[in-house]
Amino acid sequence: MRRLIGFLMLGILMFLEPAAAQQQPENPFEPELSTKEAAPPLAPGLVQELTALRDAALADDYAYRQVAHLTENVGPRPAGSPQAQAAVEYVADELRKLGLEVRLEEVRVRRWIRGVETAELVEYPRQAPGTTQKIVLTALGGNTPTPAEGLTAEVVVVNSFDQLRALGRQRVAGKIVLFNVAFDRQKAANGFAGEAYGEAVVYRSRGAKAAAELGAAASLVRSVGGADYRLPHTGGSTPAGIPAGAVTSEDADLIAHLATQGRVRLHLMLTSQTGADVASYNVVADLKGSERPEQVVIVSGHLDSWDLGTGAIDDAAGVAIAMETAQLLQQLHLHPKRTIRVIAWMDEENGGRGHDAYVKAHEWEIANHVAAMESDLGAGHPLGFSAKISASALPVLKPVQEILRSVGANLIKTTNYSPGADIAPLAQKGVPTLGILQDGRTYFNYHHSAADTVDKIVPQELRENAAAIAVMGYALANLPEPLPR
Amino acid sequence: MRRLIGFLMLGILMFLEPAAAQQQPENPFEPELSTKEAAPPLAPGLVQELTALRDAALADDYAYRQVAHLTENVGPRPAGSPQAQAAVEYVADELRKLGLEVRLEEVRVRRWIRGVETAELVEYPRQAPGTTQKIVLTALGGNTPTPAEGLTAEVVVVNSFDQLRALGRQRVAGKIVLFNVAFDRQKAANGFAGEAYGEAVVYRSRGAKAAAELGAAASLVRSVGGADYRLPHTGGSTPAGIPAGAVTSEDADLIAHLATQGRVRLHLMLTSQTGADVASYNVVADLKGSERPEQVVIVSGHLDSWDLGTGAIDDAAGVAIAMETAQLLQQLHLHPKRTIRVIAWMDEENGGRGHDAYVKAHEWEIANHVAAMESDLGAGHPLGFSAKISASALPVLKPVQEILRSVGANLIKTTNYSPGADIAPLAQKGVPTLGILQDGRTYFNYHHSAADTVDKIVPQELRENAAAIAVMGYALANLPEPLPR
Repeated sequence: MRRLIGFLMLGILMFLEPAAAQQQPENPFEPELSTKEAAPPLAPGLVQELTALRDAALADDYAYRQVAHLTENVGPRPAGSPQAQAAVEYVADELRKLGLEVRLEEVRVRRWIRGVETAELVEYPRQAPGTTQKIVLTALGGNTPTPAEGLTAEVVVVNSFDQLRALGRQRVAGKIVLFNVAFDRQKAANGFAGEAYGEAVVYRSRGAKAAAELGAAASLVRSVGGADYRLPHTGGSTPAGIPAGAVTSEDADLIAHLATQGRVRLHLMLTSQTGADVASYNVVADLKGSERPEQVVIVSGHLDSWDLGTGAIDDAAGVAIAMETAQLLQQLHLHPKRTIRVIAWMDEENGGRGHDAYVKAHEWEIANHVAAMESDLGAGHPLGFSAKISASALPVLKPVQEILRSVGANLIKTTNYSPGADIAPLAQKGVPTLGILQDGRTYFNYHHSAADTVDKIVPQELRENAAAIAVMGYALANLPEPLPR
Repeated sequence: MRRLIGFLMLGILMFLEPAAAQQQPENPFEPELSTKEAAPPLAPGLVQELTALRDAALADDYAYRQVAHLTENVGPRPAGSPQAQAAVEYVADELRKLGLEVRLEEVRVRRWIRGVETAELVEYPRQAPGTTQKIVLTALGGNTPTPAEGLTAEVVVVNSFDQLRALGRQRVAGKIVLFNVAFDRQKAANGFAGEAYGEAVVYRSRGAKAAAELGAAASLVRSVGGADYRLPHTGGSTPAGIPAGAVTSEDADLIAHLATQGRVRLHLMLTSQTGADVASYNVVADLKGSERPEQVVIVSGHLDSWDLGTGAIDDAAGVAIAMETAQLLQQLHLHPKRTIRVIAWMDEENGGRGHDAYVKAHEWEIANHVAAMESDLGAGHPLGFSAKISASALPVLKPVQEILRSVGANLIKTTNYSPGADIAPLAQKGVPTLGILQDGRTYFNYHHSAADTVDKIVPQELRENAAAIAVMGYALANLPEPLPR
């Protein structure tokens, strides 16, 4: 996430935000509305198989059981943790049981371990003698710890990078900067969650760096999330050599209000540790193609998670949906013509080393990657796909969309950016990429917080996602020709 | 809360739950619908004054500023804490500034200090080597700490007291009991928040006692609250000689799911401390009556709070609304005929010693208490009042209700129980008691949690509450005759 945050953010912006999408007039949302070409029909046998896949997915609870195991029996899975390793072994075993050829492909990850994370206001206007105020916060990944005893400094509240720069080094040096930019809940509720996230997350990712450049002692951001339950949201931050944290929206308000009245000083303890590089793995599992085994269609999600919650919507759901594709094919005795490759990515959250390692190891066969799919926006009802594909691919997908129409997942929204972080390096190399486009209105209420737990997943919505991925994945593997690039 | 929990709970049940209220056919909800007696009209001058009060309340931000100060500049206010003392002094000063005769009336309170509160599952089915699972919880007031190093025991999950008893001592002794009874969110959303609370809170209040009677090592309850943001809700619990805590709904689910698969063992640390009795105070402030100063109408809220949040909706709002009544009367130069007594109660949450002390100190003048009012259900839009008053009082109040009709606060719902915890001893002695009846649909999402903060208050709704209390309080102080008992 640290390295790819800008990219991911723009990606999210592009596939959820109409304003941004309007910048690509050549690729409107709905191919139905714009593509005059007649769609080549699918072979009747394939239509029958895709329909059977869809219906089986909607009746199956395999994916949900995978999420439940990963979140409840394994738990949080930060890259490099024993839980992440347990998850790797579990997913590999399950995919082997389904008959896939499974490889654990090494990824060197840096383990980041959350330490103490506490803060309290030690000075503020109209403070009663002998009292302080507790601040609820969490450390951001990628940051530098405070000294073990913490640090104490005045807080400077800003609402933008411009405001920070206007203050200048003299008023920022030695202070704790609080970027108090609210996640736009109304925008998210109206369906533009990605845009709301994009507007706020730049402060989480780049705030510490900007503050450090002016000599700040530490950097805090208002949590990027839509709920009002005193919930801190973690996430990656660009390394800046200073401690970086995220306070809850309530605590941001508290500090900001008090700062309008006079001087506010905060005692901050964020004692995270970054360990040495250790071995971890992408799980890469092939269901070999019967006719063109060298051609590959990826279905994927990421197996690592942040440590606060149990990583249900981010992203055990994505992994489970990908596993479900393999399960359904085996259950229905379907044999893809091209290879379907299930990937459970490692280290999406704290460096993105998993997809980097994959691209390096598979450089020789990238040209044979027919398509790469990913689910990493939760498990809400799928509207369809966001896709970085060529315009000429749209008519080919039209009959596949028809099969997903009854699920409500028949939208294909094109984008100029990768529709997912882990498939981004493949997108850059010209591989057609598709990200499942979920209803994300509540996603950022839970995202990267302790509340990302399995109860946030509605089983039927997870099944709809599985249906969309399985149908699209199998279609991409079985179309007469690879999707045009 | 510890001592009054049953009473309060029944009170809440009665004023929010129609089923329970139907047990009192002699006192239907809406006097308008049932009272055939003509209402004696108010003197035109009084109508004018009440209307002016209402309109001034709806345009004033004094109450909101009081809540903001109490929550943001003072912070959490557990009885016996420096913050509680600061709040006492602040409220007393403010009321003195308004010209009231202010007394600090001593209340001996027992200070309870939250310690470390952590837990982790150390054994569970299909556990990966070297891993544990963190459990998010909070300690309940009134409980016994664990040893400093914590305790470890198997968890037994039950869904009712009956189920616990059915297990018997042999299967409970030495174990940690988890009462996994969910707060009924649908019921709360439908307007029966009090009923939902009542059904679940019995496990928080009496669970530890029931578990201890069967030899349990500790007792946990699923948090009594309606949100799904990994938020633990604290509260009082009957002393049982064992540690007692509340896990979040997500953690209750996790433990319950794992327990269906096999043995689950938990390491629990709850290191709260209970100090010696210390002096604290009810703030009692009189705006003396011009004609019958010996007759008293109480307007009140409680100044203490739990320590997790900043006690905005529970109950800085109630105190601020009561203070606003005094402020509005001074602003409009209105002089009540009877004495209006503003009370900021101490220790509502952790013992109820404030109201006990008041009744003892004021025993001699209870007969002169014309009415007692309280706000302790948040600051949501007021529907009117729940009232423990005689049927003959209803026609008298009818014209007052008319003045509150435009605010939407014209309901009077009678009850056989006190409509508030702090006025309960007065209700028992026959004093007419009225509690403001707020829209409580979201109240228990935040109640007793870290998320009880000032942003949960909608300023205009707080003003509506102030209007309702000021109008009703002034009317009760100025009616030709005291409200019939």
